[in-house]
Amino acid sequence: MACLKSRSHVAVGITCLLSFCHLAESGKLLVVPQDGSHWLSMKMALEELAQRGHEVVVLMPENTFLMQTSEHFTVRTHSVPYTQEELDAHYRSLGTAIFDDSPFLEKIFLMYINTTRITAFYASACRDLLYDKELITFLQQSKFDAMFSDPILPCGPILAEYLSLPTVYFLRGLPCGLDYKAAQCPVPLSYVPWGFTSFSDHMSFIERVKNLITSPLQYLLCRLFFANHEELASEFLQRTTTISELFSKTSIWLMRYDFVFEYPRPVMPNMIYIGGITCAQKKPLSKEFEAIVNESGEHGIVVFSLGSMVSEIPMKKAMEIAEGLGTIPQTVLWRYTGETPPNLAKNTKLVKWLPQNDLLAHPKTRAFITHAGSHGVYEGICNGVPMVLMPLFGDQMDNAKRVESRGAGVALNIIEMTAKDISEALKAVIYDKKYKENIQRLSELHLDRPIHPLDLAVHWVEFVMKHKGAPHLRPAAHDLNWVQYHSIDVLAFLLAASLLALFISMKCCMFCCRKCFCKSGRLTKKSKSKSH
Amino acid sequence: MACLKSRSHVAVGITCLLSFCHLAESGKLLVVPQDGSHWLSMKMALEELAQRGHEVVVLMPENTFLMQTSEHFTVRTHSVPYTQEELDAHYRSLGTAIFDDSPFLEKIFLMYINTTRITAFYASACRDLLYDKELITFLQQSKFDAMFSDPILPCGPILAEYLSLPTVYFLRGLPCGLDYKAAQCPVPLSYVPWGFTSFSDHMSFIERVKNLITSPLQYLLCRLFFANHEELASEFLQRTTTISELFSKTSIWLMRYDFVFEYPRPVMPNMIYIGGITCAQKKPLSKEFEAIVNESGEHGIVVFSLGSMVSEIPMKKAMEIAEGLGTIPQTVLWRYTGETPPNLAKNTKLVKWLPQNDLLAHPKTRAFITHAGSHGVYEGICNGVPMVLMPLFGDQMDNAKRVESRGAGVALNIIEMTAKDISEALKAVIYDKKYKENIQRLSELHLDRPIHPLDLAVHWVEFVMKHKGAPHLRPAAHDLNWVQYHSIDVLAFLLAASLLALFISMKCCMFCCRKCFCKSGRLTKKSKSKSH
Repeated sequence: MACLKSRSHVAVGITCLLSFCHLAESGKLLVVPQDGSHWLSMKMALEELAQRGHEVVVLMPENTFLMQTSEHFTVRTHSVPYTQEELDAHYRSLGTAIFDDSPFLEKIFLMYINTTRITAFYASACRDLLYDKELITFLQQSKFDAMFSDPILPCGPILAEYLSLPTVYFLRGLPCGLDYKAAQCPVPLSYVPWGFTSFSDHMSFIERVKNLITSPLQYLLCRLFFANHEELASEFLQRTTTISELFSKTSIWLMRYDFVFEYPRPVMPNMIYIGGITCAQKKPLSKEFEAIVNESGEHGIVVFSLGSMVSEIPMKKAMEIAEGLGTIPQTVLWRYTGETPPNLAKNTKLVKWLPQNDLLAHPKTRAFITHAGSHGVYEGICNGVPMVLMPLFGDQMDNAKRVESRGAGVALNIIEMTAKDISEALKAVIYDKKYKENIQRLSELHLDRPIHPLDLAVHWVEFVMKHKGAPHLRPAAHDLNWVQYHSIDVLAFLLAASLLALFISMKCCMFCCRKCFCKSGRLTKKSKSKSH
Repeated sequence: MACLKSRSHVAVGITCLLSFCHLAESGKLLVVPQDGSHWLSMKMALEELAQRGHEVVVLMPENTFLMQTSEHFTVRTHSVPYTQEELDAHYRSLGTAIFDDSPFLEKIFLMYINTTRITAFYASACRDLLYDKELITFLQQSKFDAMFSDPILPCGPILAEYLSLPTVYFLRGLPCGLDYKAAQCPVPLSYVPWGFTSFSDHMSFIERVKNLITSPLQYLLCRLFFANHEELASEFLQRTTTISELFSKTSIWLMRYDFVFEYPRPVMPNMIYIGGITCAQKKPLSKEFEAIVNESGEHGIVVFSLGSMVSEIPMKKAMEIAEGLGTIPQTVLWRYTGETPPNLAKNTKLVKWLPQNDLLAHPKTRAFITHAGSHGVYEGICNGVPMVLMPLFGDQMDNAKRVESRGAGVALNIIEMTAKDISEALKAVIYDKKYKENIQRLSELHLDRPIHPLDLAVHWVEFVMKHKGAPHLRPAAHDLNWVQYHSIDVLAFLLAASLLALFISMKCCMFCCRKCFCKSGRLTKKSKSKSH
């Protein structure tokens, strides 16, 4: 099945044929993306869609963190109420907050403050977009076929509702499972752990108790996370609405999800699983990296990146990490833009950027140290490289737990870990064969698929553009209220009917008994009187 | 997207490439099929698997109704405790029973008798297979990679358990939703109608009440339907087991299901939807049929088939049908092996066999009269031909209701329908444009798919052969009992803990109050005595 593994062999052939088909039937797609690492995977899908002949218009704030224009699609920028410097400072502060070792309650409070700040920040950018009259007029006149949006911060859904466009959402998941709730997908909490709990799908009794009582907290998190956008939606659409209601209208959920990594759970027909979409075909390394890899000799290399959010690590922690990395014979390629730790060992090379996927695909790569962002984890799985996971925030703790529960990596607590922990974790994943075997097995399962996730994603965007939605995948559950969905009205009716039937039966019995007894009583009296 | 619609354009190209890949990695597949129309779609998948280089061994009873050998795969026959004549008579009696217009209760009783007879019939064939020592020894020595089986009458699952083989099940659905139950898939009864109810997914309150109270009857149906095989399984495997337990072990459910026809509902990751697998590429018509179609002129033709089970219709009913068919200007091609009705109109041609899919694909075809078997309905949808549905038994009533609820056909009651009903239904689907528009829309949605269902089916069989199952798609729900799955233990614990907390709080409050009141009481007494 090797030829199915990568798009380059067979699937690209299909793509070329498809491009031909689509030239005659090109659509017009409006895109509302999300900044940060989310943008990177969406960009791949956009470029593919553009190459297939569709007109792709991307709405981009004038100041961005990672978003970039491209020759393949049109970009329309909109103003935002912050400068580039303020945005950069904002992301820096988020990166710094990760290494803050304040007490637990203070951390929770800080997380609350940060979440409110982030959502207010993006809601303000969304407000600028929505109230940009010129832009909105342009969008209305453009007659798009559909909207393609990352809904983690739901500016796209508000705009889609205003423009009456069918939508395709592209996401890893939403806080508090709002995606599953909005899609009317059942979530059995006995084996589907809530986000941020770090539970696996095999929970102990106590974990199941915790998972269940977490539910109200998750709803609070939802309220907190979406409050700013919900307020903006009601104001802009001039009617009271909820983000959940807007989400429920989507045609297709493209979920960056694969069950070698995520836990199997019920899904809905309009949820399409495209986990591993970023795992591109390996390209040749540049001379600089090729030289480093070749020099590593038989020991090979370790790839180390904490993602785009962390530009600097506190020096004490950086030195701890450097010390740990120095204890292994492998060459470590560490993507780091901060100050060089003075104790950096000879085997460790600091680089401002590294071709992560191409390095992971190299046969000399022995391990991958990652912050457990979903893109990185999928690249690790795709290339079969065991991982040392140092989750920083968001879903990364859960991701790390998932990889660890599959026996394909070791998770460390970035705040508490010591040089010894790092060293031991690295030696374990490099020298204990079971990690390599497990990740290799996951990799084989992950890559053995009937169609590449990128082709699947593009197909469904085209489907929604062509058919103006996917109404045949919309469950009738959307037309039921909570009481009806859970058959509570039916159960209440059956209970009432049963009680009534019981009551009537008892009354009948009593009446009959009374009749009989009275009769027999009278008879007895009569017979008694006769005998007298 | 036209080039994605049929396998012949792009997908066959992939197939060829795949065949090349698989020659190096061919597997060994044991097949336990099911007789009747079920066999027809499975055969297509088997031939495709064989063409991709896999060794396919099919277990076939020595006397069959529709099963045939093929040059593409090996057939191993086993003895059965009935002759070919007995089998034919059995199928004939099933066909005749359909037109029996006995009173309702008598019909129910007859259905019960027939169901018991069918399952006993096939269980006896299964017993002969399982206790064929020579065959079992051959199967044990053959070292198959997986079993591919139609589990409607679960001989395959028993054998797979005995041989410890991973399984792929190929089915439209099981009675009483046992497939969903065994796959641990939630079934919200508020919008998922039970089989045999003919309800749509939009149920009235009364229909929802009926759907819920049908549940115990469905479990009874399950017991009745699988009782013979369950008994045989426990006896043969020498341990008490249930058919549900055997089903729950399958790796992949290949469901002949598509949501343009079925109602959207929750699904599980190991349920793969391959509805429309039988809709093959149109082949040219033979000269005989081409001539008939061409002679039909501008009015075109109507294709009429009640499937392979009905060889004869009572003359009174056949005459009623013939009269109805005579009222339309279209030429009717009626596949019928019974006695020719004397009133057959000139426009109606009786044929012993017809190339159903090729005729439906012809642009001159105006309508399709079908018994609403799932294969036929999918061929109707695939080719965009509006339908007049005359369901006979089993899931056909539900199928007819589904097509009717989509506005793509008119359903008739075959027992009660008159010549006028047939005539009106035909005229409606031929001349009322909305039927053609609706079926055309369903057809477009159905055919716009990223991969052909046959390629998808073959991929997953190969997946299970290669990886010895699909463990990453197995939900942890299988490791929970009923109480745990529904979190009843957790809820009971939380209730007990809450009551205990309430009790302790009340006790504390009462204690405090008593203390306070007593103290104040004593103080009051003291102060009173002082004041005196």
